[in-house]
Amino acid sequence: LGDRTREDDLIARHFGPIARHPGAHDLLDDAAVITPDPGFDLVVSKDALVSGIHFFTSDPPWSIAAKALRVNLSDLAAKAAEPVGFLLAIALPQDWSEEWVADFARGLGADAARYRTPLLGGDTVKTPGPLTLSVTVIGRVPHGTAPRRTGARDGDLIYASGTIGDAALGLRLRLDRDLERKARDGAVDIAFLLDRYLHPQPRLEAIEALRACATATMDISDGLVGDLAKLLHASGVGATVEAARIPLSPSARALVGLQPALLETALTGGDDYEILCTVPPAKADAFESGLAEAGLAVARIGAVAADEPGLVLTGPDGARLTFAHGSYSHF
Amino acid sequence: LGDRTREDDLIARHFGPIARHPGAHDLLDDAAVITPDPGFDLVVSKDALVSGIHFFTSDPPWSIAAKALRVNLSDLAAKAAEPVGFLLAIALPQDWSEEWVADFARGLGADAARYRTPLLGGDTVKTPGPLTLSVTVIGRVPHGTAPRRTGARDGDLIYASGTIGDAALGLRLRLDRDLERKARDGAVDIAFLLDRYLHPQPRLEAIEALRACATATMDISDGLVGDLAKLLHASGVGATVEAARIPLSPSARALVGLQPALLETALTGGDDYEILCTVPPAKADAFESGLAEAGLAVARIGAVAADEPGLVLTGPDGARLTFAHGSYSHF
Repeated sequence: LGDRTREDDLIARHFGPIARHPGAHDLLDDAAVITPDPGFDLVVSKDALVSGIHFFTSDPPWSIAAKALRVNLSDLAAKAAEPVGFLLAIALPQDWSEEWVADFARGLGADAARYRTPLLGGDTVKTPGPLTLSVTVIGRVPHGTAPRRTGARDGDLIYASGTIGDAALGLRLRLDRDLERKARDGAVDIAFLLDRYLHPQPRLEAIEALRACATATMDISDGLVGDLAKLLHASGVGATVEAARIPLSPSARALVGLQPALLETALTGGDDYEILCTVPPAKADAFESGLAEAGLAVARIGAVAADEPGLVLTGPDGARLTFAHGSYSHF
Repeated sequence: LGDRTREDDLIARHFGPIARHPGAHDLLDDAAVITPDPGFDLVVSKDALVSGIHFFTSDPPWSIAAKALRVNLSDLAAKAAEPVGFLLAIALPQDWSEEWVADFARGLGADAARYRTPLLGGDTVKTPGPLTLSVTVIGRVPHGTAPRRTGARDGDLIYASGTIGDAALGLRLRLDRDLERKARDGAVDIAFLLDRYLHPQPRLEAIEALRACATATMDISDGLVGDLAKLLHASGVGATVEAARIPLSPSARALVGLQPALLETALTGGDDYEILCTVPPAKADAFESGLAEAGLAVARIGAVAADEPGLVLTGPDGARLTFAHGSYSHF
């Protein structure tokens, strides 16, 4: 009697080779088994992505795979955790093709290798709706060292890694032909912004410095302004941030120069997957040099003040900036 | 500036109360932190469920929640693992209502308490497609004791827990009005079969006996015949099973009596979430008495034979039974 279904074959052929963790049992078992190393805590996070909402249906399959894994790895980075492995649930739409799955799996495999994050298990189903993905990532930190969102204290310095707003501007360029034409005429590096939307860079190189120095951390997924407000709220503190100190890439700066209202998009738009954290002044030098050694740019954007809760953002003239939407939510 | 989105509010209101694990940080953080107990392995499994495929869109929200969690807990039971916690990704359809989410969360909370499986984290998104769920469950077993699918050896006895085919027959009754009428006229306990489809019972009470006695285990999700063939294939062995020894409930027996072709549905139909395992003869008594003490019925349905790989199923006359579909796959 038949002992293999089409699903089994699909999994074995395309996802089996990515399942290099011995506990994944080549994806042939009901579940994966992990033996945690003594002295470590495990960190788990799970994100869902829906085609047409979190990515474009026409995006390259390998880019979709990379995004699904990387947005989860970004959560690990924010908890100063190194990857252990991941699980993938994929709901394939009616018009799925073996070629698409093969390309997707190739991209996933490349990222699994790049981030040393083997596939541990998961599920493949079909859906009458759009392609839907869910990744669960498992990481580890030395026991008790995972920073939380709640530890920001009066006087702590606020840092953001990389550059802010590139992905949100890249998305805007994809949706707005006029803007795209304007940007092209203005010699803006469009490809850079598009790539920043398509391929998040989880800042795993920051984990040592975060573990050693940060009092509160999160990754920026829903826009710097909204996410910083969340961090301050969770910690019960406030801060004033000058917009001019928020790090923008040359491409983002050029595009905002062409259309100044896009500053709001950059600061509230989401999909940055940069690290946002607070560091006590006494550890600032160690933090900055640690990240410099790791090759990750970081900008000091403000300081925590306990006297007034909430976030105040100020413009070049010192006046308060207010935006229609504090943060972007796909929801 | 605003620091909470509608998604945050929804999560806090309905899912926050289920997140009783201290490492869940009330769902306010990027990720959950678990401190594994020394000497234990962790077992992780992930299943996806799509409305209209894995359950009916009209099913009660609390039943959908129960199913999503329990099919994953069934994977833990098959690995002899006790639950530690779970993560949930939920993609809500366009017509979602707060009332539906509240009912869903209530059902999920009841099951989280019942199975001592706190919610650790997850993600809530919207989809233009059908409601889609993914649960990742984390369990634990004493180091090195998780049985696998590959350990069945010559002479091992083959066991199935509970009764087989109820859920598949319950599903058939929902899809086939004529059959439902016939069953009602024949005084079949339809409610029992429908409930077996709607509410899987993860056999976590089996884990001690499985850990102590089983050489190979899996849970029956795609039909006994196909799943046993998979187990035998993974272990590189064969078996002959008399169909008459496969445990059927009185309701299933009555329905198959009315329409004998439904035996194939019962044995290949899926959604049983019973335990299938092999046990060496020397441990059979201990296994059977262990399960009796745990209050779980178990039937010895055959024995492993190493000489001929694959599964042979025989009818009452000793002749080989063959079915059109060895196993059911939602895929």
